[in-house]
Amino acid sequence: MTRARAIGELRAGGLSEGDAAIVVDHLLGADAAGRHGHGLTRIPWLVDLLGSQCDPEGRPERVEHTEGFERWEGRRALGHLVLSAICDGLVAEPPQRARFVVAESCFPTGMLGAWARRLADAGLVAIVTATSPPRLPHPEGGPPLTGTNPIAIAVPAADGRPFVADVSMGAVTHGDVLLGRARPEDLVPFGGPLAHKAFALAAGVQLLVAALAGPEPGAVVLAARPAHDPVPAFRELAAGRRLPGDAG
Amino acid sequence: MTRARAIGELRAGGLSEGDAAIVVDHLLGADAAGRHGHGLTRIPWLVDLLGSQCDPEGRPERVEHTEGFERWEGRRALGHLVLSAICDGLVAEPPQRARFVVAESCFPTGMLGAWARRLADAGLVAIVTATSPPRLPHPEGGPPLTGTNPIAIAVPAADGRPFVADVSMGAVTHGDVLLGRARPEDLVPFGGPLAHKAFALAAGVQLLVAALAGPEPGAVVLAARPAHDPVPAFRELAAGRRLPGDAG
Repeated sequence: MTRARAIGELRAGGLSEGDAAIVVDHLLGADAAGRHGHGLTRIPWLVDLLGSQCDPEGRPERVEHTEGFERWEGRRALGHLVLSAICDGLVAEPPQRARFVVAESCFPTGMLGAWARRLADAGLVAIVTATSPPRLPHPEGGPPLTGTNPIAIAVPAADGRPFVADVSMGAVTHGDVLLGRARPEDLVPFGGPLAHKAFALAAGVQLLVAALAGPEPGAVVLAARPAHDPVPAFRELAAGRRLPGDAG
Repeated sequence: MTRARAIGELRAGGLSEGDAAIVVDHLLGADAAGRHGHGLTRIPWLVDLLGSQCDPEGRPERVEHTEGFERWEGRRALGHLVLSAICDGLVAEPPQRARFVVAESCFPTGMLGAWARRLADAGLVAIVTATSPPRLPHPEGGPPLTGTNPIAIAVPAADGRPFVADVSMGAVTHGDVLLGRARPEDLVPFGGPLAHKAFALAAGVQLLVAALAGPEPGAVVLAARPAHDPVPAFRELAAGRRLPGDAG
């Protein structure tokens, strides 16, 4: 599918040209990173969302802001657009030291590593995490308790090659399930005999975001100004082994 | 070993009575939680540190602080004492919304979940993470690149039963290795075939902390005031299954 065609499909779902371009560029970035579960294949699902729980005309709003804290309300906009607006604001007015951002009602958020990378490209250290509908059960079984709740961490580098980790707590992705590449019952916390660790992180993100942003899926972003440049030396120590976020 | 005897050993290592009590109470808490690798068995190792890279008379100092940001220098104090002082400050003057704390030269930090729990007991949502000397290699092999770099997340609960996750990225703990319960070569990122996920988180913490706090092991703390109380409903949904941080 071409970029223009993809934008057209989201336009037909009600998005403005500008908003559709933001979402499609995010999806294309996911495809380029090999994360097809977050790529253009998501378009029919996004169009469905625009006709149901999301509002194509919803505009995220920054309802509170100080130097160290912001709170946003998603206003039923697609989560991609909420995180895009948050990143725009952080890049335009970066924190002197650090700023923590809470986004209420922010879903779906796409590939979190891309938002973290955008902040790193602007010279900021970033943590981005978000919740999604419950899909992961407790390692001992039972109903789904948490989303796949990825944690993305990005660190800029003076040599222009930032580090970007983006780790979902699921053994497979929900995107893989949507694409038929994994069975729903494979969507459990990763780690096999140590799955309680990934579950603990997924539950931690779930409850942290819920405590700050309320019951709807939400997101939090920490952006901070680095004082040191550790990535190049780390890369050297890794001696050519592939690091998270590097091209495959 | 009794509490008094343990305090005596750290006193003999040069710590003041008050500092020794803070450290011993932390170690006793780890033992009570079944995390013996962080418990009283660490005392000989701590006494060694007090005679080498740490300074028994070192006093952590808060060198920068605003409503949303603090920076501390560990001044070669034991990391337990640095995190204890940081928590004291956050509890005494909690953030209106959120505060991010960077601790330079903060090692060893003990069981991070205990510091996060302390903040949750004071009504704050908390994330605590820290680096330690390199012990985990890349999943493809090579030299150790990252510490075990635990991430602790705590969320208070109106019913007095907070949620506390505390997840190291290692398949075993360094404490287990010190105690002879695991071999050094077992200290790799957890996750088996998905170990790249735990490695990505370990590397993310390593580089985030290094970018903010410099090359020595350090710690960061995020404390925020919750707006919602999601833990009791989550516990109910888990239907009696053990949650992270609950008594075993």
